[in-house]
Amino acid sequence: MTPTPSSPNDDSTLDLACELIRRASVTPEDAGCQALMMERLKALGFHCTPLPFGDTENFWAQWGSSGPLLAFAGHTDVVPPGPLEKWDSDPFTPSLRDGMLYGRGAADMKGSLAAMITACESFLRTCEAAGNTPRGRIGFLITSDEEGPATHGTVRVMEWLAEQKISIDYCVVGEPSSADVLGDTIKNGRRGSLNAAVKILGRQGHVAYPQHADNPLHRALPALQALATRQWDMGNEYFPATSFQITNVHSGTGVTNVIPGHADVLINFRFSTEQTAERLQEAVEQTFAEHEVHAEIQWTLSGKPFITAEGALTDACREAVKDVADLATTLSTSGGTSDGRFIAPYGAQLVELGPVNASIHRVNEHVKADDLARLSKMYEGILTRLLNAP
Amino acid sequence: MTPTPSSPNDDSTLDLACELIRRASVTPEDAGCQALMMERLKALGFHCTPLPFGDTENFWAQWGSSGPLLAFAGHTDVVPPGPLEKWDSDPFTPSLRDGMLYGRGAADMKGSLAAMITACESFLRTCEAAGNTPRGRIGFLITSDEEGPATHGTVRVMEWLAEQKISIDYCVVGEPSSADVLGDTIKNGRRGSLNAAVKILGRQGHVAYPQHADNPLHRALPALQALATRQWDMGNEYFPATSFQITNVHSGTGVTNVIPGHADVLINFRFSTEQTAERLQEAVEQTFAEHEVHAEIQWTLSGKPFITAEGALTDACREAVKDVADLATTLSTSGGTSDGRFIAPYGAQLVELGPVNASIHRVNEHVKADDLARLSKMYEGILTRLLNAP
Repeated sequence: MTPTPSSPNDDSTLDLACELIRRASVTPEDAGCQALMMERLKALGFHCTPLPFGDTENFWAQWGSSGPLLAFAGHTDVVPPGPLEKWDSDPFTPSLRDGMLYGRGAADMKGSLAAMITACESFLRTCEAAGNTPRGRIGFLITSDEEGPATHGTVRVMEWLAEQKISIDYCVVGEPSSADVLGDTIKNGRRGSLNAAVKILGRQGHVAYPQHADNPLHRALPALQALATRQWDMGNEYFPATSFQITNVHSGTGVTNVIPGHADVLINFRFSTEQTAERLQEAVEQTFAEHEVHAEIQWTLSGKPFITAEGALTDACREAVKDVADLATTLSTSGGTSDGRFIAPYGAQLVELGPVNASIHRVNEHVKADDLARLSKMYEGILTRLLNAP
Repeated sequence: MTPTPSSPNDDSTLDLACELIRRASVTPEDAGCQALMMERLKALGFHCTPLPFGDTENFWAQWGSSGPLLAFAGHTDVVPPGPLEKWDSDPFTPSLRDGMLYGRGAADMKGSLAAMITACESFLRTCEAAGNTPRGRIGFLITSDEEGPATHGTVRVMEWLAEQKISIDYCVVGEPSSADVLGDTIKNGRRGSLNAAVKILGRQGHVAYPQHADNPLHRALPALQALATRQWDMGNEYFPATSFQITNVHSGTGVTNVIPGHADVLINFRFSTEQTAERLQEAVEQTFAEHEVHAEIQWTLSGKPFITAEGALTDACREAVKDVADLATTLSTSGGTSDGRFIAPYGAQLVELGPVNASIHRVNEHVKADDLARLSKMYEGILTRLLNAP
């Protein structure tokens, strides 16, 4: 176990996380999470602006009117719970067992949302008690479609902020960045993400007459095998190696005596700055061509790779983590995309700091209950360092 | 065109086929087809026994009480018509155009049922006129679920016949066996059919953290590739080589950022007598094990391979075809399963002889109108050869 020089015993972060988990906000539903967050922020003097776009609830909240802007960014939506019978407790009823908080969103990222709020509460209370005024502004950029198509969320709020001439200097995204212990990893960039919907064409026929048919599954196997086993690159200083995954295959009508006429395959790349989307697309298309697979491919570039160089924000994060957890944190660019990809291009320094991510998107998603108050202290430490500097 | 030394111009087979097509008997419905057939058979002196089991109408009809038993076997049910707008005429309104009879069941197998009846009518009339008594018995084994699950049809009637101590010596199944010209192919056996529902287990996870997941699709690829490319056997005198087909793959929930937890795969073997179901099962299970694929497999044996060696029945068929169509017919075991698989194991010599099968199970199913009377003559030729021998 990691030593815990500061062991906050304040339950307010845990309580708020439970309140948020109870609101079953599967993408793009918000289920009242944002109203609860805005209520707490308004009580602190934040000015809150709901920004619904299409089916997506979003809001921007801001405290202060001048100086550097530190924004917390996050999402209230969660991925579907999957098979309920595989959960040991209801995914939308927070459950504390053996020091763990179980529930959909506990780690991704309702625990972080709660910690952001309580961090601001504690920070502003402390400033007030000391008679200090923070030297800067605090923002909250919250959406409800990070786990979905992500078209009506952060993208639209960033456009709105640009129209308002509000630009974010530092951004802390609450994504679960930690690997084994809270704070051991901070993400200071992300890999690119490239999706393809591949329709592999064959010729339907009766299974008893394979000579009259062309099985698209048989045809695709060697090409998919070549793609799945290929070493795309070795990564670099900031990025792990590019990875390829087949995420979906659907082919056949369910009957056992018909060779299917086509196969629908979804593939995903997470790629380093050693690659470009164009080069990956070419390589895939060439692989299918080499194996004589007739494939119709629709490409979607979800995000290009981006990076925040070491500086004021990464320093503040490292020190805050060190203070709370006595840990030397690691900067990393591994893991999934986050809405950071939509914020970083506007020029903000951006990091992701949040809970251990091992259980996210799975059944029995959980977070160490104590970690929530500790995460709140880390966020507060970042606020103190960036907005209270002399 | 094939020369037609005997060109029957009797329309009674065509008329009866039309009457049967008008009865919309989609599996397991019989829609009055069997009542019509029994009415005609009773008029000839057949003793008819309706044998309904579950939702399935069946009957057994028998003429004569001693001597070798030649049974005609068939089904009154048809597959659904599919999209009506793609038919050039209503599937259940027989339509004659350019010498073709169109309608659902025209080829599979109401034309054959009509031909069996008119063959018996002509045969018994001819015997009577000549003062001959056939040396044997004639049977009809008719079901209404050949195109469906086939559980309450021929299987149950065969059990009933066994209880009655009735055993079939020769069986002619009316399945559409012909490839290009009526009578060019007689099926004297069928390959076995073995299905497996394979659930390939992995571990679900976020696509950005493949190290925490175990992609069942990536894991299955080399095993499926090995199965799809394997030469199972070379077939033999009677059978083509065993074939393996992947008929369905379903994996993934449709989202692009989740590595699926499992993959559902359906596979089918059509196998020769060079294989047994047990050996195939073992080989598949071993292949998955060798590739470290954790697979849960449910096996379903749809039918073992069977064969009728050349002998009295195949000789009678060849001669009857030669007489009517001046064709040297081919014996074959290719193609799909039929209810023959349930009859042959009781020891009957069994063949399938029926119309050209190119249009079966498709829109605009059809049969050459003239072929119906010719098929009747072929069936009559078989009756004459097997039951009128000195």
